[in-house]
Order: sequence, then C-alpha cells, then structure tokens
Amino acid sequence: MTFTAVELIELKRDGKPLPADGIEWLISSYTEGAVPDYQMSAMAMAIIFNGLSGEELTAWTSAMIASGETLDFSQVPVPKIDKHSTGGVGDKVSIPLAPLVASCGVAVPMMSGRALGHTGGTLDKLESIPGFAPRIDQDRFREILENHHLVLAGQSDTIVPADRMLYALRDSTGTVPSIPLISSSIMSKKLSEGLDGLVLDVKTGSGAFMDTLDEARELARTMVGIGIANDVETVALITSMEQPLGNEVGNANEIKESVDVLNGAGPSDVTQLTLALAEVMLELAGVDGGRERLQESIDTGAALQKLKSVITAHGGDASVLDDTSLLEEAKNEAIISATESGYVTRCDALTIGLTASRLGAGRERKEDEVDHGVGITLKAKIGSSVAKGDPLAIVRYGDEAKWEDQRDKLATAWTIGTDQPVAIDLVVERVDRTQI
Amino acid sequence: MTFTAVELIELKRDGKPLPADGIEWLISSYTEGAVPDYQMSAMAMAIIFNGLSGEELTAWTSAMIASGETLDFSQVPVPKIDKHSTGGVGDKVSIPLAPLVASCGVAVPMMSGRALGHTGGTLDKLESIPGFAPRIDQDRFREILENHHLVLAGQSDTIVPADRMLYALRDSTGTVPSIPLISSSIMSKKLSEGLDGLVLDVKTGSGAFMDTLDEARELARTMVGIGIANDVETVALITSMEQPLGNEVGNANEIKESVDVLNGAGPSDVTQLTLALAEVMLELAGVDGGRERLQESIDTGAALQKLKSVITAHGGDASVLDDTSLLEEAKNEAIISATESGYVTRCDALTIGLTASRLGAGRERKEDEVDHGVGITLKAKIGSSVAKGDPLAIVRYGDEAKWEDQRDKLATAWTIGTDQPVAIDLVVERVDRTQI
Repeated sequence: MTFTAVELIELKRDGKPLPADGIEWLISSYTEGAVPDYQMSAMAMAIIFNGLSGEELTAWTSAMIASGETLDFSQVPVPKIDKHSTGGVGDKVSIPLAPLVASCGVAVPMMSGRALGHTGGTLDKLESIPGFAPRIDQDRFREILENHHLVLAGQSDTIVPADRMLYALRDSTGTVPSIPLISSSIMSKKLSEGLDGLVLDVKTGSGAFMDTLDEARELARTMVGIGIANDVETVALITSMEQPLGNEVGNANEIKESVDVLNGAGPSDVTQLTLALAEVMLELAGVDGGRERLQESIDTGAALQKLKSVITAHGGDASVLDDTSLLEEAKNEAIISATESGYVTRCDALTIGLTASRLGAGRERKEDEVDHGVGITLKAKIGSSVAKGDPLAIVRYGDEAKWEDQRDKLATAWTIGTDQPVAIDLVVERVDRTQI
Repeated sequence: MTFTAVELIELKRDGKPLPADGIEWLISSYTEGAVPDYQMSAMAMAIIFNGLSGEELTAWTSAMIASGETLDFSQVPVPKIDKHSTGGVGDKVSIPLAPLVASCGVAVPMMSGRALGHTGGTLDKLESIPGFAPRIDQDRFREILENHHLVLAGQSDTIVPADRMLYALRDSTGTVPSIPLISSSIMSKKLSEGLDGLVLDVKTGSGAFMDTLDEARELARTMVGIGIANDVETVALITSMEQPLGNEVGNANEIKESVDVLNGAGPSDVTQLTLALAEVMLELAGVDGGRERLQESIDTGAALQKLKSVITAHGGDASVLDDTSLLEEAKNEAIISATESGYVTRCDALTIGLTASRLGAGRERKEDEVDHGVGITLKAKIGSSVAKGDPLAIVRYGDEAKWEDQRDKLATAWTIGTDQPVAIDLVVERVDRTQI
C-alpha cells in the first residue's frame, strides 16, 4: 500500500487507527528525510491528544527499532539484562547496581544518558572519574562485555536514528509529554541492545517527569507491554522521587556515594533501591540466590572490584574509588540552615535538582558543559528532626553569581513542621506481565 | 515580553490562553522565517484540538493582517462593500452580484479566488472571457475602482503573506479543518481590503466544506465576530449547498448563466441568492431602495452594462456577454439519463462538483490548468419530475478517457423517489451582530 503523510496525520487527528504498514512507512520515510519535520511535528501533536493504541504502539516501536542497527551479544554465554530509569535527582543507582549484578553471573550491557533539565545523567557522573571514556565503538563494546560482563557506555549512534531525530523535534515542538512517545523512545533503544530482560525504574513524585502515580503506572504498564510484545521480559518498579535519592546530588559526589553503597556503607534509600532492582535483574536472568547472593558480593568486595575493573577497561583511573578525596570538588562552600526547629516534612527533589543543575552539575541545553565538582550534600531529609540553625544542606559551587541567583530558591526546598511525617515507601509497586 | 515558540505551543496544548503579544510575536516571527514550519504545524494541530478563544482569535487575525499591507480606498467617495463565499458548486453569484450592487451606488473592490477541490473559483470563470486579466497592480486596482466602483481582481500578493505561508502549511499537515484558522484566514484578507462592510455567504450541506448546519453557524458567528471586532460591519447568510446553484457547473457556461441573471432570465435559485446578498450589501452601505432598486438596475440593463465596462477595464472582450455562443465549449457531449421515473430527491453538489473538476473545470493541485469549455448542464434538480430516459444532465468534456473514469460516478449524484420532496430553503438563516 502507498501512503501520504497528510492522510496518516488526518487519521490520527480524527481518532482513527493508523495501519501498521503506514506507521512503518512514516518512520522510515522520516528517517530518510522524505517526510519533513513539519509533518512529523503535526503527527506528534495529534498523538499528544489522541494517543496510540496497543497495536499502533507495537508497530511504532518496531518501526523505530528498524530505523537503525540492532546489537547481538548471543556469543556472551550469560543472560544480558539492563536497567533503565525515567530520571531523577540524586539517582546514582546504575553505578553500584550494574557491577553488583554483573558480579553475580549476569551480563549488563548498559547504555546510559546525560543530565537534562533537573535530572542527573549516569554518563556525566562517570566522567567525574579521570580518564573515563564512555564513547566506544561496537567492537570495543563487545570486547569489554565479553571480558567483564559489564559495559558502562553512552548510547550508540547506530541504533534508533529515528529516535534522535524525533526526540530533538519533540523537544522544540511541545510534544514531549506523551506516554506512547516516551515509551517507544525508551523501549526502542533498549530493545535494540540484544537484551534477555529489562528492569525499569519508573519514578513518581515532584522530581519525576511523571508526577502522579496514575501517570507513572500508565507509563510503566505501557513500557512493560512493549517489552513483552518484543519477547524481552520486562519488569518495572514504580519508585518515589519526592526527595532526592541518597544524600549527594551532583556528579563527583555521587560517585563517592556509589562507592559507599558497594562498601556496604551507603545511605539506606540508595542501598535499598539498588538491592530491589538488582534482585529483579537476577530474577529475570534466572540466577538464584537473590538478596543473599547480592549481599555476599558486597561483603566480599566482588561488586566494587567489578566496578574498578570496568572503569579501567573504559580508560578511567580506578584508584579514585579507593581514595575518593581525589575526586573533583568545587572550591566554594555554602550552608543552607534550618530557620526553625521541627521535623522535615518536605525535601523537594525538583527544586534541589534544578539548583544543582543551574550551579553547573547539569545542563539546560545539550551543548552546556558539566562542572563535575559542583554538588549538594543533604544533611536533612524527610523525617529528619532539626533544630533552628542546623544545616539542611552543604552546597559546593564554583561561580558566586550563579550561587547568589540560586540561594533563595534552594532554601524553599525544605518544609519544617511540628509532626513527624509518615515514612514514604521507596518502592511503590511492581508492574510486570501479570498487570498489563 | 519575550516568548519562545515552544512555550506558546505548550500553552495551547495545555488549554491555557495565549497572550495577545505572544500571538503577535509568533505570527510575525513565522512570516519572517524565524519560527520554522515544524513549530507552526505543531501549534496548528494544537489549535485543531483546543481552538482559539474570542480574544485569541482577535489577536491572531490582527497579527495576520499586520503581516502585510492594508489597502485604503478612502478617496473613493462611496461605501466599499465586498462579499465572500466559503465555496460551493455552480456558485457564480459573485459575477452578477458585484456589478448589480456597484450599479446602485456602492463600491465593490472584489478579490476572488480560484477553483480548489470540488468547488469552482470566480477568477477561473472570469478567465473564460477572452483577454480578461484579473491580476493587476495596486495603482490599476485603485484606478478601476475609482472609475467603475467595481474591481474583479485576484488576491494581491502584498496583503497577508502570513496566510499564504500558513495555508500551504495547513494543507500539508492535516490542519485545515479548524474554524478559528479558517475564519482568521478568510477575515484577515477581507479586513486588509479597506472595506466598510462585508457580507459572507456561508455554505452548508454536502457540497460545502462545513457540511452540518451547526458547523456553518459556528463558522458564520466566528467570522462575523472578527469583522465586528475590527470595526467592519459584517453579516453572514447561511445558505444551502446540498445541490449546485443554478443549472450550470463549469466556467464558460457559468458566465453565460451569470449574464442570464443580469438579463432577468436566470434560474430562480441563483437570482434569489444574488438578490438576497445584494440587499444585505445595500443595507451595509446605507443605500436605500433595497430589492426594488436592484430589480430596476436589472430591468434597465444598468447592472449588465456595469459588468461589461469592468470586463473591458480588465482587458476582456465584453462582446461575448452579448453573444454568449462566442464562449468556449468543449467538443464532446454526453447525456446522463434517468434510469427510472419519479421525483428527483437528491442532486448531490459534492459529486457533481468533483466530476466537473476532474473533467478539467477545476484543479486538484494548484498548478493544474483549467479547461474553460468543460461543464455540466443540469436538466433535473431536487423536486423535478422525470420520466425514465429523460436527461438529468448534459456533460461537455474534452478528454474521452477522463469522461470514462467519471461517467458512473456522476450518475450516482441523482436519487429518484416516488414522493415529491419538500423544497429546501436556499437562505437558511442570517447571522449578524445581534447573534454573536
């Protein structure tokens, strides 16, 4: 059959189903440049309003995958499992998680992203380590995976070129917040990695892109559905992002906290989430032992050793993991203090993430440079008891003018009340094939 | 204030009001090329779903007008009144209407369009007259208007350039069917003509772009509202386009029928609609005499003389109006005959309009050439009593292959039943400032 972009746009505009071969034609024509941006942006806006059905979404994701190469690691003789997070503040979980799981007989071909908006990026955090090079070619990727069962790389340019084009277009046309478009963007990339299983960390709360639980649940179900439809067993954990994860928000300071987790000395929330996701990854890999096996790998130092060896493989100086004082630290320090006594009832992830980003830990535009030594260390989180004058956070920054701009805003991230708040569940719920 | 296109798109996407200065910035930046097509098409699609409020529409139309020149005919010492039709089949009303009104002391600076889709275009019909040149510069426009109080011109390139860009974009992005976008497109052009009043002929029925009465009413109210907001008194008549207007559908044959109207010998529906619209134009001009004055202008031949003199001014050979057998006629003739006896209960404007267009009377693409001699003469319309074998229509065409393609389809335009149908009201209702 032949199609025109206008006919397909009109179908979606009018709430009628897009044929699977029409979707395939649209995405491949767009990737080749035969369908112009101005038609694709009209289609994306129509999808914002009318969504994509399950059938349409399956076809859309397949067409995205087909726009580029797919990887095949079948010669690596253990199950390949990856994790994806929808993005949060202080979320360094990938860094302890990947070596922990890889040290238990699972291969983790992890491709991570960069900081954008108020959220941090695993690649930027890893680049705090001197010499660490996340951009590697496919041969080197395969070699590191075979030798270490773990790769910590950036997204390959050869997989899902349609997503790079579409993502940039959506970013400039107000068409980002669409669950089917977000889901197919994430899943097309993950499904091109030759995985046997995938765990998704879908954030909910003020610091998440999906701020309500209903939206997070719909996103989780949609992505799990796409994974299952493509024969990659997929499980999502919906987790809280009301406050930052752990006590460190930034880059180099998050590496330090990641090492603490692998030394068995991390903050309880980061440790708990790392173990919860790791347990699902072992389950998806069919590896026995569960939580006990993971704990053993931490206790024996095997997990930390795995991280060191893969950092070395990526050209990084792994000695900084033994002496984290060698990591970069911005020259100036400021303290945010409690203005009254009581219990912290709110420690807002969005505000803290935005401040860290604007001080230089993240980027507002893709071309911005990250300052790895900038960071915020939280001294009081939800449930903490504080006295007036106690530090809520220590801020390390380079640029005085930027700090003057951010100081007042950052102080609004905390609310102090008289009653101790009810503890938040970190893992809110699990979504797997039984729920879709 | 400064804006970004993304922020404005997001406001519209989320159903929030667009600020007037934001709209002004958007349209002027788009016209200058600073806002790209892919952002404007996303905005247009968001408007398809979320519409434009009255305030937004006023600002949008003003911004469209401000994108180009506006005309000023204040030196012509009589009221300037124009008519616009939303487009129909067999709708040659402009051709007798404009000279009829101009012969009664009103100036009519008419700018007409071309055939598109199933609808005919006044300019194409006028170009059936040898030598007639609708494209004239502003000085010549002013000169003809001063001398004759009537111009029959094409759209000027200098007014509303934003509309030319936006119309082409909407046509290729599925964003045509939006009442605010249609209204602002039409009204921005008419409001740039320096008018004192405007009458709108808003079609409803199978041959109209708005096929339900509710949609036609909303379009009429929206356009009248824009006119009033811009201090141009505007009245709309909602008129039926279930079947073609008159008996002639084409180009040269419609000129012949227009002359019949001005000779007092036209079909009753075209005559009735011409007089109804003319009466409103006199009312808007504050010219007394109404229907009687118009009838007198027909009876004395003043109206026909006005048409002849303006055709001459446009370089046309006005003698064809005295001997319409000089007009072009396609060489082949075919007859569509009734397959049973009874009353015609349906004579479908859309089917007849599409057939005429595909035989060469119209254009499917803007660059197509019109064959002025192609046409359909209706011998039976709704309410006609026919016997089996009686002609329903006579078709004049040039290309046998095209006719073979269209013959069966054209025959489906008529339905013959046993009961005489109730007569359709040609003028369904009037919409003016009291209804908005």
